[in-house]
Amino acid sequence: MEKLKQIAVVLCGSGFKDGSEIHESVAVLWALSQHPVQVQCFAPDAPQANVVNCLTGHVAPMEKRNMLIEAARIARGQILALDQLKVADFDAIILPGGFGAAKNLCDFAVNGANGSVRADLQGILEAFHARHKPIGAVCIAPALIALAFRHKGFDLTLGAAGSAADAVVALGHRHTVTRADQALVDRENKVVTTPAYMHDDASLHEVFEGIRKAMASVVALAS
Amino acid sequence: MEKLKQIAVVLCGSGFKDGSEIHESVAVLWALSQHPVQVQCFAPDAPQANVVNCLTGHVAPMEKRNMLIEAARIARGQILALDQLKVADFDAIILPGGFGAAKNLCDFAVNGANGSVRADLQGILEAFHARHKPIGAVCIAPALIALAFRHKGFDLTLGAAGSAADAVVALGHRHTVTRADQALVDRENKVVTTPAYMHDDASLHEVFEGIRKAMASVVALAS
Repeated sequence: MEKLKQIAVVLCGSGFKDGSEIHESVAVLWALSQHPVQVQCFAPDAPQANVVNCLTGHVAPMEKRNMLIEAARIARGQILALDQLKVADFDAIILPGGFGAAKNLCDFAVNGANGSVRADLQGILEAFHARHKPIGAVCIAPALIALAFRHKGFDLTLGAAGSAADAVVALGHRHTVTRADQALVDRENKVVTTPAYMHDDASLHEVFEGIRKAMASVVALAS
Repeated sequence: MEKLKQIAVVLCGSGFKDGSEIHESVAVLWALSQHPVQVQCFAPDAPQANVVNCLTGHVAPMEKRNMLIEAARIARGQILALDQLKVADFDAIILPGGFGAAKNLCDFAVNGANGSVRADLQGILEAFHARHKPIGAVCIAPALIALAFRHKGFDLTLGAAGSAADAVVALGHRHTVTRADQALVDRENKVVTTPAYMHDDASLHEVFEGIRKAMASVVALAS
């Protein structure tokens, strides 16, 4: 029997304003569950950048939450610390979106094109790319990919034109406008992106459709 | 233009061990997004029964979280307090599963067939049923429905046989064994149930398929 492809999904909390976007993360897991693959979730065992009351949108300044413990809510407990991710054991890596992708896993939310990626994740992403293993990124996470691979000239999408798309271009990549139900595949670099809730008004089934297409492309590119 | 059907979804936190099960809640929203309906999420503006570290499974005894504020993570902020739910404004009501459904919204997790439902939710459910508006319940939430409508003889499913199914029978209902990708429709009482993660080993796409069928039946039954 052929060995199942192994897919790593990197989360960073649970919630659109301070962690991994929940709908997108579940859509990634749902889409992958339709393929003959094994999925393992990971998250840094470290504090979130902050905690945001997702009802009011206000930062809860006294609260501390851990990315791994909160992401376990999305992963139903089946999650490992990011420092346990061995690149050799996986065929592809996926980053869902949410503000956490832009402020927990990197500092794009604060520093834009001048930002940088968490050192551990930077090393992991470089190792996946160097071994020609596909990388999938959803919503704002393609901005993290743009930071991690400055001037590599990837084809990326953040949905519509705007400041995030401008930053991706400033970082030496190409930006393509896409709808929520579409995915953009850079076959040469094995990078697959889909905008999801970068389109604020996207309906949930459109977000799911874009992520379904993106995950199908990632699985197909994983050799 | 015909008025869109209005669907209320009742959440109670965000996470399988202390709130609404995230995958099931997102599946409900995804399934409903494929119909010409408007969805409004609600949750009680009250503390969760407890907070559980979903990585370790251990209760975090010093932590307090609010059902409404945490459920806003799933609802992307688009959620109202349960006391604002006016039954006259809605055509159907849905309860996703998760431990929260059995310990925040009722005390089935502790008291089984001797338990009771939060008074506000009990009144809301009785009003929906009295007006022949459909009720949908996922995973363990059918046990809450069984408590709310003792000896009404509903057709309900909690997946496999077992102690939860026995309690439903003890409460004067009929229990039918179903798979995760199935939904059970009690047309006479307009109650639709699907087992989801009552089957621990269900794959996510099976959970989604059962919930997709359940939501289609609820929408069809909503007049």
